Amino acid sequence: MEWQVIDEKIKRWMFEAREMILASFNTKLDINTKSNRNDLVTNMDKKIEKFYIDHIHESFSNAKIMGEESEKDALQDADGLFFVIDPIDGTMNFVKQQDNFASMIAIYQNHRPILGYILDVRNNELYWGGKSIGVYRNFERLDAPQDLTLREGLLGAGLPMILNDEYHFQEIARETSGVRMYGSAGIEFINVLTGKTLGYVSRLHAWDYAAGKILAEELGLVVQAIDGTDIDVLSSKVVLVSTKSANEKINEIIKA
Amino acid sequence: MEWQVIDEKIKRWMFEAREMILASFNTKLDINTKSNRNDLVTNMDKKIEKFYIDHIHESFSNAKIMGEESEKDALQDADGLFFVIDPIDGTMNFVKQQDNFASMIAIYQNHRPILGYILDVRNNELYWGGKSIGVYRNFERLDAPQDLTLREGLLGAGLPMILNDEYHFQEIARETSGVRMYGSAGIEFINVLTGKTLGYVSRLHAWDYAAGKILAEELGLVVQAIDGTDIDVLSSKVVLVSTKSANEKINEIIKA
Repeated sequence: MEWQVIDEKIKRWMFEAREMILASFNTKLDINTKSNRNDLVTNMDKKIEKFYIDHIHESFSNAKIMGEESEKDALQDADGLFFVIDPIDGTMNFVKQQDNFASMIAIYQNHRPILGYILDVRNNELYWGGKSIGVYRNFERLDAPQDLTLREGLLGAGLPMILNDEYHFQEIARETSGVRMYGSAGIEFINVLTGKTLGYVSRLHAWDYAAGKILAEELGLVVQAIDGTDIDVLSSKVVLVSTKSANEKINEIIKA
Repeated sequence: MEWQVIDEKIKRWMFEAREMILASFNTKLDINTKSNRNDLVTNMDKKIEKFYIDHIHESFSNAKIMGEESEKDALQDADGLFFVIDPIDGTMNFVKQQDNFASMIAIYQNHRPILGYILDVRNNELYWGGKSIGVYRNFERLDAPQDLTLREGLLGAGLPMILNDEYHFQEIARETSGVRMYGSAGIEFINVLTGKTLGYVSRLHAWDYAAGKILAEELGLVVQAIDGTDIDVLSSKVVLVSTKSANEKINEIIKA
């Protein structure tokens, strides 16, 4: 299947999802916790995920799907199209800020990544692209970010990385120009794609990084699991996306 | 002097300053370090500060001024008008992100705070107001944010507070719904004013918090120096702005 056929549908669905999310700001959310009191899911996460899944089943009847809130097909069982969905990434920000959250979809064909989408909902900016397609913000093609060294840029980080000094990230933080925490993997990936930060590190689930990884690698950034294992869309692990130079230095410090 | 006379001028100067800052994105910045390699000053910080100071001297010939990059008059010596200026707050973000930075002015008359201004430069949003005037985003009056408890909201923090566990802020961080780091006191104050975070804590200079303090207190938020000393515009110290409820809980933990 031509990627343009899929792309046209995904963009339509995501902008429709955006309208539904914005409309929800005027309604009372139904909020529940998952793994801990700060791991939230709302009726809107579930509604948007179902919206995407229904459309996918309708348009691509044999597609397999991994969604944050529901279906959990596995990439290796998906011979045709495989969709990884994070309906609202940064649910805490969605609830507390009504800002700084994203909606994300990653698409694989025959086990290979082909398309990634990160929608900055509030700012109405869709970051999308894929292998040999390039990466775009809405209609504007993005250049590869500068290959900043660790000292030259800002690092996005999940709080536990710093709080618990996981993988020496306290020392790594001190080497940077500063640390930023935006509370949404999607927003953090966008910042790395656009060069606002040189990297981002956090413990992530597949749906948190699948789309970002596709876009980041197309722009020459490096995405790795900190423990050295291959990244796959099945497990949660500490994931680092960064410039090549920062990646080398961070690995030096981790292994020192 | 009527506050409206001052207000009308300040707004004009700040929007003119904004145009100068945006225009500078297309030029090469001249960047220098101050107290350490991550404490930056650019030609634009100096240019905007001079722009404000020249206008203040022209319009209010007896005014005293404390500017981040130049004049350092003291509040107690200022019998009439006293201006505290931070031309570009979040200079690192200005340099690395061209986003997430502010321009700030606080105004005192006869030793008392009367007006505060925080301009989110990139988003063209001016947060302004003062005692008995209210607080506004451009033309829209802001309601007081909800009095969230520490567990109910997000906390903005400067990295050293967490990294060095200053004043038990690692434990305090774990009590919140999450920590955010935006890298600009002005942007962090805006987030507290609008309820996106329940508070913000960081080691700050007078020009970092003078405007935010005036606006925060007008909205019923609490601003305090963590060491219990009075806040004044002369010294740098760890400053906490937050909801009343969060302030009480944080002080409980600090003193435990």
